[in-house]
Amino acid sequence: MTRPVARIGILTGGGDCPGLNAVIRAVAKAALSGGIEVMGVEDGYLGLIDDRIRPLAYADVSDILTRGGTILGSCNKANPADFALRVGDQWVRRDVTDQVVEHYGAAQLDALVVIGGDGTMSGAAHLMTRGLRIVGVPKTIDNDLWASDITFGHDTAVATATDALDKVHTTASSHHRVMVVELMGRYAGWLALNAGVASGADVILLPEIPFSLEKVVATCVDRSKRGRRFTIVAAGEGATPIGGARFVDRLDPNSPDPIRLGGVARFVADNVEKMSGLECRSMVLGHIQRGGTPTARDRVLATRFGFAAFELLTKGRFGEVVVEQKGAIRSVPIPEVAGKTRTVPRDHDMVGAARSVGTSFGD
Amino acid sequence: MTRPVARIGILTGGGDCPGLNAVIRAVAKAALSGGIEVMGVEDGYLGLIDDRIRPLAYADVSDILTRGGTILGSCNKANPADFALRVGDQWVRRDVTDQVVEHYGAAQLDALVVIGGDGTMSGAAHLMTRGLRIVGVPKTIDNDLWASDITFGHDTAVATATDALDKVHTTASSHHRVMVVELMGRYAGWLALNAGVASGADVILLPEIPFSLEKVVATCVDRSKRGRRFTIVAAGEGATPIGGARFVDRLDPNSPDPIRLGGVARFVADNVEKMSGLECRSMVLGHIQRGGTPTARDRVLATRFGFAAFELLTKGRFGEVVVEQKGAIRSVPIPEVAGKTRTVPRDHDMVGAARSVGTSFGD
Amino acid sequence: MTRPVARIGILTGGGDCPGLNAVIRAVAKAALSGGIEVMGVEDGYLGLIDDRIRPLAYADVSDILTRGGTILGSCNKANPADFALRVGDQWVRRDVTDQVVEHYGAAQLDALVVIGGDGTMSGAAHLMTRGLRIVGVPKTIDNDLWASDITFGHDTAVATATDALDKVHTTASSHHRVMVVELMGRYAGWLALNAGVASGADVILLPEIPFSLEKVVATCVDRSKRGRRFTIVAAGEGATPIGGARFVDRLDPNSPDPIRLGGVARFVADNVEKMSGLECRSMVLGHIQRGGTPTARDRVLATRFGFAAFELLTKGRFGEVVVEQKGAIRSVPIPEVAGKTRTVPRDHDMVGAARSVGTSFGD
Amino acid sequence: MTRPVARIGILTGGGDCPGLNAVIRAVAKAALSGGIEVMGVEDGYLGLIDDRIRPLAYADVSDILTRGGTILGSCNKANPADFALRVGDQWVRRDVTDQVVEHYGAAQLDALVVIGGDGTMSGAAHLMTRGLRIVGVPKTIDNDLWASDITFGHDTAVATATDALDKVHTTASSHHRVMVVELMGRYAGWLALNAGVASGADVILLPEIPFSLEKVVATCVDRSKRGRRFTIVAAGEGATPIGGARFVDRLDPNSPDPIRLGGVARFVADNVEKMSGLECRSMVLGHIQRGGTPTARDRVLATRFGFAAFELLTKGRFGEVVVEQKGAIRSVPIPEVAGKTRTVPRDHDMVGAARSVGTSFGD
Repeated sequence: MTRPVARIGILTGGGDCPGLNAVIRAVAKAALSGGIEVMGVEDGYLGLIDDRIRPLAYADVSDILTRGGTILGSCNKANPADFALRVGDQWVRRDVTDQVVEHYGAAQLDALVVIGGDGTMSGAAHLMTRGLRIVGVPKTIDNDLWASDITFGHDTAVATATDALDKVHTTASSHHRVMVVELMGRYAGWLALNAGVASGADVILLPEIPFSLEKVVATCVDRSKRGRRFTIVAAGEGATPIGGARFVDRLDPNSPDPIRLGGVARFVADNVEKMSGLECRSMVLGHIQRGGTPTARDRVLATRFGFAAFELLTKGRFGEVVVEQKGAIRSVPIPEVAGKTRTVPRDHDMVGAARSVGTSFGD
Repeated sequence: MTRPVARIGILTGGGDCPGLNAVIRAVAKAALSGGIEVMGVEDGYLGLIDDRIRPLAYADVSDILTRGGTILGSCNKANPADFALRVGDQWVRRDVTDQVVEHYGAAQLDALVVIGGDGTMSGAAHLMTRGLRIVGVPKTIDNDLWASDITFGHDTAVATATDALDKVHTTASSHHRVMVVELMGRYAGWLALNAGVASGADVILLPEIPFSLEKVVATCVDRSKRGRRFTIVAAGEGATPIGGARFVDRLDPNSPDPIRLGGVARFVADNVEKMSGLECRSMVLGHIQRGGTPTARDRVLATRFGFAAFELLTKGRFGEVVVEQKGAIRSVPIPEVAGKTRTVPRDHDMVGAARSVGTSFGD
Repeated sequence: MTRPVARIGILTGGGDCPGLNAVIRAVAKAALSGGIEVMGVEDGYLGLIDDRIRPLAYADVSDILTRGGTILGSCNKANPADFALRVGDQWVRRDVTDQVVEHYGAAQLDALVVIGGDGTMSGAAHLMTRGLRIVGVPKTIDNDLWASDITFGHDTAVATATDALDKVHTTASSHHRVMVVELMGRYAGWLALNAGVASGADVILLPEIPFSLEKVVATCVDRSKRGRRFTIVAAGEGATPIGGARFVDRLDPNSPDPIRLGGVARFVADNVEKMSGLECRSMVLGHIQRGGTPTARDRVLATRFGFAAFELLTKGRFGEVVVEQKGAIRSVPIPEVAGKTRTVPRDHDMVGAARSVGTSFGD
Repeated sequence: MTRPVARIGILTGGGDCPGLNAVIRAVAKAALSGGIEVMGVEDGYLGLIDDRIRPLAYADVSDILTRGGTILGSCNKANPADFALRVGDQWVRRDVTDQVVEHYGAAQLDALVVIGGDGTMSGAAHLMTRGLRIVGVPKTIDNDLWASDITFGHDTAVATATDALDKVHTTASSHHRVMVVELMGRYAGWLALNAGVASGADVILLPEIPFSLEKVVATCVDRSKRGRRFTIVAAGEGATPIGGARFVDRLDPNSPDPIRLGGVARFVADNVEKMSGLECRSMVLGHIQRGGTPTARDRVLATRFGFAAFELLTKGRFGEVVVEQKGAIRSVPIPEVAGKTRTVPRDHDMVGAARSVGTSFGD
């Protein structure tokens, strides 16, 4: 017979994502109301390694629903079997699984709610093999988690990116420019596609649809000839020219501090300017896509995910991760989602809708 | 063999809804790119009655994606068989079907895209019996259209309502008050439920879950005793006390100008104050829920709906209305959705999630 | 020789106002950095009456800059010589000056920073006669404080009101309506004037410029004839018809819970509809004007006011209230501002600017 | 006797700035109401060079109050005596004064309203010597115009920058990082100072206060030791290390397309990381600071400026530029402001206020 759940831990891992606090609040309030003790693990897996685990009371999780970030702190390193640690001035890689298991046991946790992306879920899958009872909640502004149609944080990131594109729109239209705006999304184009369609971008560049510089130039020049003298290009950071190499330097998850030099936006702007003679500018939207107050939709989704995680806990369904499929909240085994990416199908109706209003994908 | 579509009309009916212009833009741009002429019908069915139908060029539908309202104008009256018209100082009801059919024919429309709510769809179903070829696009901030999981405009309304509740939150917490905020939604609680969960409302009152004043008072008093001296109540306008009558006066769709006196928020605030001695305030959020720039999500959804309507047109699938089901864009026969309402199931997981974080539904 | 300041109290009084926390933070951080102890008085003068006074540490005032409301709580009652108290089920009026003086002394406060409106400043002036050393910081979203050109909170209220008017604009333009929106501001028109000009309202009604219903109707009808079939009316709550009585019931500061029935917006909408036959709607924007995250400008102004109050404290300039005059931060004696109101001069250039773009003041 | 004003031109020059359309609307509506013809000059001085001048009717300037950008288009080149023109693939510099004077005459303009920054005002001063009758309206998001305490567009830019800093705040606090955000402002620190104070930045770097890298590092390390493991640095683009060179490459107004490589944010982030071992990230906020819907305050200020410009026109006071001084709208001779910059005094009370809440200026 399995041990009933009397004390749980909550941990947030990976990059920042609006809605993390809403999930923490939902899990913790539900658990505390049900008489379960709640412990907060600080800074993702680091808190398990360093034994920084503290009790969370009702007051700790009140009034945090609307706040961006995570009250628990996070950590980009996600693989306890090969963990990048700072020792003095150096980054070294260690297998810290034993420490994690030891501190999990010492804290008398009956289960752990792990809120994180595919990397964090891979770490969770590994820890499950060592006996940790884990329930997962997916977290990614990129919306690229395998098995979940939507994840919290994505809507807020799309809203922030759309707001930026709307602002850029007015500047471009006043000055007759080509503006290339680089958005996040890693190897998936969901963020660029949604923000591009929402803002009526003239060109959208996605990792899933390799683009031709010539086609992008043709669109800009054609618009210019038809009297629309500005063009807005929304480029996902993972977008790649046909036959070209990815701008992988910036996306390598193994790099502890990737250098943000010369991404795809710069590449497109420089080349389009050279090839067309049109004035081009590029900008990288950057970290503001990960921050801020979550949208209403993300707060609701995060609350539902948190509640679903609590229900998995109470039913003893460990090893599962909450997902949203076809409008309903469900769950799937954690190993099933670990290390996988959900990308945009080229025949998605959003792509067709964008083309029908005149948007080019550069293909 | 059916006549191919060479000229279409577009019409928007019913109350205002963010995203209408995005649909108009998507349908018109897709049609114009495909060599189809596009006519805009002014002020809903009124434009067909009065023969106010004008051509729409590409420039007319450019730069309207982000704007609230409808460039075509709208009209709250939706039933051509029993249409409320202003004649001099009087409102009279007439069957105007013949005029509508005549002007539709005279304008040489091959099909009509009708963007509207369940009332407008009932009108469309009636006009189909007289030979009009119609494709429907659902429009309701209430999200209560039968057969569609989500409709554009709802997300924006939820965002506006959530923003208002967030603002009220700070005022209530400074002054130790019970604040009752009345939200739209008619006979469905989607708007109040989403905004209530998103803002962490302490009490949510829905049409689908009749409430007990005693229970609401108990929640407020209990919070007060536990040192949380404010309570936020998010009340759908159709919420009804157990055993009580609806506040139907304000919701009667047949009234050309319903009087907005004393709705449910006022009723709750007055009675809770009397019964508890706590200071209570009420406010009616009103028309701002229907206005403003659509959220990114609503712009995307409206664009997808517009594209889907265009595809129905080109496939000759008249008599159908675009819907979203389980994440996918589909269509169903217009008569199937006419006059029906999709309400919140009492066992919806959002209701459970809200209860688990401590929200009361007054039941 | 005056006693040096080693311990201060901070108190917030009156209606809610965005930026209160920013002032508290600025005063407290400056004082704590200077080695001065800081005590927070809860719920305005109530906390002095009930002896609810607690120490504030640096952590208590961190991370509150962007939050609406006041972490100290507030209280609408402002006159210790005639204070409305709840005793059982009754409101009774008492002179509580002795209690206030006693608890001020018992808490060993060397000075008190009072953040409040003209009512709260009147109370402060009274307490100064009993030996309390007070520095005032003006607080009013209405911007009606005598001697200060601008007060924090006003910009946020204008932004909220403008946003609402922008939203209403789209709805009105889609449905050919007259929309009358009632804004706060009490006996001063600053809020209605600023929000009206910012949103391009067609009619602005101010307490300072009595209006003629006939003129308002003429504007609406004239616009309708010229094809602009909607009209937006921004009405300050204190606006009054020529020769008519004020809608004083709602504005009476002596009423502990004024009934918000039938204000000026309703009056205008009902009468314009009757007189013109145009469809009219009214809405009361209400408490959301007092809430929410302060604008950048209000956060800056509140921080400057807080710093100025701290400087008055350190210079021993008690009995003064911080003001902004001609762009500079200054101070004036508290009794000078108590109970006075700064209204809009009829020849203010903003009124002229509004008229020049076609706005009517109904005069 | 001077020729009365029967026809005016309006022109917008320089970088984009929220509120341009509000000024155009105010000038044009006031003029048209007064029976004066209004011509719009396209793309700044370029439209005078190329003779692209078109009539503006009331409808052209309706519904543009809330829109960013300029309906007239703009141009960054501002000196007709030394104008950078694109001829084929080349940029060449020409004296185009004669063409400008000729087309001004041919269009039978009695006066020209020039809306622009100090560069555009220098151009205007030059054209005045050739007989053009000009009224100026200052435009700069940087708020660095000599003689005006505030200019429209600045408040919106501060709001955008503050919103970005707020978002970055949550990310930094979740991940224990130093985040360096580069803001616009050229050689003046108003934008960085206002946004830095508004967002509670821990370090603010201004062009007016040269900074020491060692001091910035000390602040970050000190915060880290006190348990606040993140630090937000708001850096004006013109900020300069003590004894170091400016990052002038990016700010050179003579460069037609300045390369945005490696600005001050990158410099600070790279060096602080190297010197402290703390994880640092930098971002350049970029063009979104110039775009978007103007804030309520900017719409009001732009409308007042437009009205004041119209009044100067009707009074025959040519050669003057509208300014705001100590809260009042005034005017000064155009040559007085041309080519000058208003910077932040080191003893400004805002600097003192920032220091008092613990902000470091790195000095």
